[in-house]
Amino acid sequence: MQNIYFTPGPAAIFPTLSKHIQEAFELQIPSISHRSETFRKIYQECYQGLKQLFNLPDNTAVVFASSATEIWERLIWSCVENHSLHLINGAFSKKFYETAQQLQKKPSFYEVEAGKGFDISTIQIEKNIELLALTHNETSTGVSMPVEDIHRLAEQNEQGITALDIVSSAPYAAIDFRKVDTAFFSVQKSFGLPAGLGVWIVNEKCVKKSAILEKKGLLTGTYHRLTQFWKYFEKFETPSTPNVLAIYLLNKVTQDMLKMGIENIRIQTEQKAKKLYDLLENHDYLEAFVKNKAHQSKTVVVANVKNGESTSILKKLKEKNMVVGSGYGEFKNAHLRIANFIANEEVYIDALINELKNN
Amino acid sequence: MQNIYFTPGPAAIFPTLSKHIQEAFELQIPSISHRSETFRKIYQECYQGLKQLFNLPDNTAVVFASSATEIWERLIWSCVENHSLHLINGAFSKKFYETAQQLQKKPSFYEVEAGKGFDISTIQIEKNIELLALTHNETSTGVSMPVEDIHRLAEQNEQGITALDIVSSAPYAAIDFRKVDTAFFSVQKSFGLPAGLGVWIVNEKCVKKSAILEKKGLLTGTYHRLTQFWKYFEKFETPSTPNVLAIYLLNKVTQDMLKMGIENIRIQTEQKAKKLYDLLENHDYLEAFVKNKAHQSKTVVVANVKNGESTSILKKLKEKNMVVGSGYGEFKNAHLRIANFIANEEVYIDALINELKNN
Repeated sequence: MQNIYFTPGPAAIFPTLSKHIQEAFELQIPSISHRSETFRKIYQECYQGLKQLFNLPDNTAVVFASSATEIWERLIWSCVENHSLHLINGAFSKKFYETAQQLQKKPSFYEVEAGKGFDISTIQIEKNIELLALTHNETSTGVSMPVEDIHRLAEQNEQGITALDIVSSAPYAAIDFRKVDTAFFSVQKSFGLPAGLGVWIVNEKCVKKSAILEKKGLLTGTYHRLTQFWKYFEKFETPSTPNVLAIYLLNKVTQDMLKMGIENIRIQTEQKAKKLYDLLENHDYLEAFVKNKAHQSKTVVVANVKNGESTSILKKLKEKNMVVGSGYGEFKNAHLRIANFIANEEVYIDALINELKNN
Repeated sequence: MQNIYFTPGPAAIFPTLSKHIQEAFELQIPSISHRSETFRKIYQECYQGLKQLFNLPDNTAVVFASSATEIWERLIWSCVENHSLHLINGAFSKKFYETAQQLQKKPSFYEVEAGKGFDISTIQIEKNIELLALTHNETSTGVSMPVEDIHRLAEQNEQGITALDIVSSAPYAAIDFRKVDTAFFSVQKSFGLPAGLGVWIVNEKCVKKSAILEKKGLLTGTYHRLTQFWKYFEKFETPSTPNVLAIYLLNKVTQDMLKMGIENIRIQTEQKAKKLYDLLENHDYLEAFVKNKAHQSKTVVVANVKNGESTSILKKLKEKNMVVGSGYGEFKNAHLRIANFIANEEVYIDALINELKNN
């Protein structure tokens, strides 16, 4: 019997994925050249689909790296000479900050404790900040930043680049890409694809900044520096042989999402999230780890085990072929992380809720 | 009707690939965690298979990047403070050199014209060379470096690291990894997998060098710097979410190759190559681009079109559902590039030869 995955990434595969893979093999997609017209059409269609799904302005490219982790590196390397400012409230926003440190930049940060969100009225964006690094959805703890807060901070950051990690909230997050300059996600979360592709949405402001740093003689990278990405994007090619099959599949799944309708996806995501948080409000030994409802993630719901630990719960669920994520890092044995992605359809969420009620 | 691909990458898929993909989906490989015991077992088995296939010594790791292009960058960044020496005889060995330039190192080089190999008695490896960069098989022009020459240069480079690009010659190339410190390939060539994984074979000498550079406070990378790769390799994990499905498939195809036997693979590759070069020796309007038999690649056979251009030949082959590579770069319309990988089985090579005889 197959497992039902509720893990926050790698996650449940998109319902149509197997069909698309089969078609990809019939079309011999793994053998086509990445310098062929066939590939350029796939890239172009994928870009146009994502443009529609994310409502992207015209001056915005979509380029492909191998993971969101790679994009942290490429983004900071390409666009920051010295100063980035990071809002840290979990393991992944912290890694984004540490990437800037490893690249020997001079990053600064605001930090709140795990499970807490930010009071943005306390955030000061100094004039020397070149890049403001925000994380919409902390996959580690299930804390989310309200989209209005992101937009407000972006408005206060007109001189700098506003960068947003939407790894585990795309495409649910209704981001205004007239305010946010760059965002990125990996496909093994809500897009339900095999891991191995990072999707980087990036506007002209970012590439212009990168060109300035290059002109100064600064080291901004090699084949995957932003100016190279952009140059190849303009002809719907990539600087090196990409994960062609994943781009093909991303296009197919994006078209499926457009058919579902992004508004419907958002409504369904919220309905399923409500059911999960309702369960946690009324549960004997589980509670929402994030207390402030405004900061509760709609796509990764994290439950804290009151007076106990998660191992036995995960084990019991596994016996019913339900695979839920354990906690992240220090919370490994204290939390359950439940993905509420598109592939985690309502019927499965209901089954999980039923199981957790009686567990 | 399906095409028969003879392109040098992306290339024909490995004969067993579709079966393995189907099994991967049945086993839900795209959903498993890269921090799970299931993944660690896949990585370990894949490493052990590659260790056997390449006859690797014990102090040698196999780690996964997204492409060979990424490995050029990570290798130079991690292991070179100033001086690398590059043997350039085509577009890809040149890009390896340019990667060092882009990383603001001080690379030097020997260069011969396209289609020519090196007389290694003319190569001087100065004592300050930290990394000697060799390309076993120039995918751009079909010129190959005799393995004995590689070993002899490696012996002359005891103080430095000897790095070898085996992108389009693995696993055919019978490299002595007691002499060569690091080598790398991408899986969309002779391994016949979808693009999106770079395989990096790397020994302790390299990681020790990298640790020294780090201690000096030099910037050697972030999540994919060599010391990180090594640390995670020791527990059969990866620094970030990798292309899990590709690693699963690489393991399966490696096991298939071990069943075929590496000696048989080498014999068959040479037999098929001989047939192709025999054709070119006796053809009206095609000839081998590489004249020196000792430097003729066994895995990428490049034909020059005498007094003409390749477009019409490629078109006629395409009408018979045979897809052959065009020339690379400046030779785009002058050459045919014919892959002689494992998936290009003898029956297909025979059919292609027959077609080219009567074309």
